[in-house]
Amino acid sequence: MSELAERSGVSIPTIKFYIREGLLPPGRTTSPRQADYDESHLDRLRLVRALVDVGGLSLASVREVLDAVTGPAGLDQAIARAHGGLAPRPPAEPDTTRARALVGRLGWVVDEHGAPLRQLAAALEAAQAVGLDVDDALIDVYAGAAAVVARYDVSIIPWSREDPAPSVTQAVLGTVLYEPLLLALRRLAQSDAFVRGPQRDGGATA
Amino acid sequence: MSELAERSGVSIPTIKFYIREGLLPPGRTTSPRQADYDESHLDRLRLVRALVDVGGLSLASVREVLDAVTGPAGLDQAIARAHGGLAPRPPAEPDTTRARALVGRLGWVVDEHGAPLRQLAAALEAAQAVGLDVDDALIDVYAGAAAVVARYDVSIIPWSREDPAPSVTQAVLGTVLYEPLLLALRRLAQSDAFVRGPQRDGGATA
Repeated sequence: MSELAERSGVSIPTIKFYIREGLLPPGRTTSPRQADYDESHLDRLRLVRALVDVGGLSLASVREVLDAVTGPAGLDQAIARAHGGLAPRPPAEPDTTRARALVGRLGWVVDEHGAPLRQLAAALEAAQAVGLDVDDALIDVYAGAAAVVARYDVSIIPWSREDPAPSVTQAVLGTVLYEPLLLALRRLAQSDAFVRGPQRDGGATA
Repeated sequence: MSELAERSGVSIPTIKFYIREGLLPPGRTTSPRQADYDESHLDRLRLVRALVDVGGLSLASVREVLDAVTGPAGLDQAIARAHGGLAPRPPAEPDTTRARALVGRLGWVVDEHGAPLRQLAAALEAAQAVGLDVDDALIDVYAGAAAVVARYDVSIIPWSREDPAPSVTQAVLGTVLYEPLLLALRRLAQSDAFVRGPQRDGGATA
């Protein structure tokens, strides 16, 4: 366990806590004071830390994501279930009517009862509540950019129908860890666009 | 005040709390039990709610953003200061060496000591910590998508050098409220790409 702690950078008390909470399977006991941990433990530990530290997920949500990663479902069902755990819980159940219409207009094939659709509905409601416009032109720009990123995300996942677990882990890690990357890059690009001024960069897509 | 509460959907005790905390200027007193509130109060109240509810900001961060919105700085300085309040506080000061090199390679003009650059550095560190690759190919895809979105963001801001306050408010609202929109659309696009399978969509950009 001390080797696992060293390689992962996670403290021994925290590792013990995760094992007690069922987030990490116990090692294979080799002697009363010794247990073996393998690469799968290290992978799982990294996933849990990423979900907690970067994703800001509760232990209950982490468990939901782990169930998806280790469950017997196919790859796309596993991703859908992982997204369920990853999505922020909206304070109230949002009305998904507009979100469904919008995704339909984009021609995307998505689960009409899935967490990402509720996430979109909540985002639309929040913008509307402060009188911020979310018209078709804005959706087209954002959806176009999101699709480029998402197709790339899927293309770099090691794809294996025989052993889907690493694919699902990679997909979940990518979903959680590349989000702050995308948001940071958007803000930097905004700074750049502001410095250049609207005369040079603005209006081209308006 | 009851009219302000009704139009904003924010309760009177909450409005009183914001005034006490200095997040909302008091109304113009017209009689001992009566005060006038105008459109600027409503705008400010919507901004505070968006920052708290959607942005998940602390009151201290909200104050930082409001100082930027109402400060005497030029528009791009105000945006930079607002970004300072909006950026998540990384647990430790990240090393920005790689983030600066990366932004330099993209040719973006950004503040080398600004919050978004630290945000990018923290995102890179988090991905690296779980062994997730962030190579130039991935950065190019993400930065390209971020730039398209950011240029559009800047293009739709009402631009006025005479009265920059509404521009800054719009820029801050857009930064905060369109983030969940972008993330929800990315997840939906991922679902769509997964359903279509890597054979059809993957690899094109790899």
